[in-house]
Amino acid sequence: MTKTVTVERARLLHLAEAALTAAGAAPRHAALSADILVEGDLMGIGTHGVLRVLLYSERLRLGGIKAGADIKVERKAPSLALVDGDDGLGPAVAMTALDAGCEMAAESGLAYVGCRNSNHLGALAPYALKACERGLVLISGTNASTTIAPWGGREARLGNNPLSIAAPRPASAGPDAPHFILDMAMSVAARGKIRKARDEGAGIPEGWAVDAAGKPTTDPVAALEGFLLPFGGHKGSGLSQAVDLLSGVLSGARFLTDISPWTDYPERPCGTGHFFLLLDPARLLGKEAYEAAVTRFCRLIRETPPADPAQPVQIPGEREQLRRAEALDKGIVLPADLLAKIEALAKGRGTPSPR
Amino acid sequence: MTKTVTVERARLLHLAEAALTAAGAAPRHAALSADILVEGDLMGIGTHGVLRVLLYSERLRLGGIKAGADIKVERKAPSLALVDGDDGLGPAVAMTALDAGCEMAAESGLAYVGCRNSNHLGALAPYALKACERGLVLISGTNASTTIAPWGGREARLGNNPLSIAAPRPASAGPDAPHFILDMAMSVAARGKIRKARDEGAGIPEGWAVDAAGKPTTDPVAALEGFLLPFGGHKGSGLSQAVDLLSGVLSGARFLTDISPWTDYPERPCGTGHFFLLLDPARLLGKEAYEAAVTRFCRLIRETPPADPAQPVQIPGEREQLRRAEALDKGIVLPADLLAKIEALAKGRGTPSPR
Repeated sequence: MTKTVTVERARLLHLAEAALTAAGAAPRHAALSADILVEGDLMGIGTHGVLRVLLYSERLRLGGIKAGADIKVERKAPSLALVDGDDGLGPAVAMTALDAGCEMAAESGLAYVGCRNSNHLGALAPYALKACERGLVLISGTNASTTIAPWGGREARLGNNPLSIAAPRPASAGPDAPHFILDMAMSVAARGKIRKARDEGAGIPEGWAVDAAGKPTTDPVAALEGFLLPFGGHKGSGLSQAVDLLSGVLSGARFLTDISPWTDYPERPCGTGHFFLLLDPARLLGKEAYEAAVTRFCRLIRETPPADPAQPVQIPGEREQLRRAEALDKGIVLPADLLAKIEALAKGRGTPSPR
Repeated sequence: MTKTVTVERARLLHLAEAALTAAGAAPRHAALSADILVEGDLMGIGTHGVLRVLLYSERLRLGGIKAGADIKVERKAPSLALVDGDDGLGPAVAMTALDAGCEMAAESGLAYVGCRNSNHLGALAPYALKACERGLVLISGTNASTTIAPWGGREARLGNNPLSIAAPRPASAGPDAPHFILDMAMSVAARGKIRKARDEGAGIPEGWAVDAAGKPTTDPVAALEGFLLPFGGHKGSGLSQAVDLLSGVLSGARFLTDISPWTDYPERPCGTGHFFLLLDPARLLGKEAYEAAVTRFCRLIRETPPADPAQPVQIPGEREQLRRAEALDKGIVLPADLLAKIEALAKGRGTPSPR
């Protein structure tokens, strides 16, 4: 078993931010990115947590992520905007877009913001939580470098492009009532799970991946040389393409095989695209009517008789929000060597930036 | 084998419209509905084609679909509207919403239109095609009466809510270049396929459905008494819920188990909800930049080396648009008894409405 340590949110934020500023990021971009990555860990999405500080730092030093990025918002219409990330830290680009979108949705009720020249943005669920806390419905997605073959193909031309759809629960539902936060990638299993199987010398289930020749495999090494299978076959393949269209094509970003893979070329900008579509349900439907409807909706789902009486049916994102509440209370559990590495990176610069 | 006949689009439109007006629908609502259903047949989506004229007619006569429905559009903001369908024909409600959304998107660049008090709307792909022909990106969906258990549950509380995401190809790509039209429901297999297996005395593959106790089954009769399985397990279940939130909760429609099932109660209004989210890519990105990007995107997908050299990789909706071109040229192939039934319904009223 990996040795773990428990760390408080505030301390982890401080360390992650210090590590990113030590690698050259502007203090504000480092703070925004640390926040999103720590949110990933709080929600139990460790693959998209502070683990990424190591990679982001490396790419900042190599120039693949631009340290002095000038992130710009361009309004195209009252409900449309594009963000040019200037190859900066993905979470800083994405939070700039989310903030702009929330402001526009507050004014007009609806907003689409596309991002280009961005990088890995962490998980989508933290952005969804922020939108929900501001009372907004969010549809968002990002493209990614290619790991999936379009259905019927034998070459990875498609990213494992996650899609998130989220809707806020009202304050009246109580402080612990979870927001509806769907956040799903398009592969049957994440690439990280296959890497883990390889590292542990284990096999992988059939249906997760194919080898480089497009043949089904249970060997993680062959799978990593091949590509991931989309969930639901042609459905997941089509949905992943649709997310790339909304993230990459509409934003003027790179898409499909044009995205530079950070795994192979950490020193090159990725050119990643994201999108954030925000809607104010109170403006559309009226605050009371929306709150009554979404409360009933979540109740109907959560009161479904469970197949296993010990496992109540949850709404999407409920588990992550329960984990978050627990981690805020008891601390975040991390591998000890990961925390040590982030501490070393943070010390590299001396004093971390003020918050 | 079922005996089939080939019928031209114009004649089928005329018959479907006449049958619906004979059942009491307003001529304009009948025309809009006939158009959407015939489009379903043109695209080879026979389960959502003129077969539905029989059901719509029955429900018009029984009052489940209101013959004299007064469909109203209420603008909430420059980019937000709600349509009250007054329990009218689903395609008439949905086309009213699509038209309003296209008009709003032409003005502001972005529009969300939600529909309440609606009914079955046919397939989503015909709406997507219309949006694409007007140069607009469309995200749309509808809820439906419950056939799926939320993941981890053992009671059908979730509809097989389809989601469509579509993006137009430019005219410069040539007259035959297909638009990108994803249209997918959330079950592994459609309920119609299970009905077909039952009628043919065949079994169904594992993974399609569970019986009433929530246990996996390969018996179509047990499956029809049980419920459909979502594709990708918790992912399809979560996405189906998200579509219902966008279709039902946001529009003020019914949702989940509140939707009245037309199979059990054809005489009752369903209260179905839909949504149409439209975006003008020329306004967002500029016409030339969008056209270059979407053309390259579709080319990269279609030029993926195929696993089977005889089966080139297609973009979503390409197959349906190829079928449509062929059916426009050679006619629509229908079961002979279905056409006979529609002809009989059409004659019931005498002269069909003028177009």
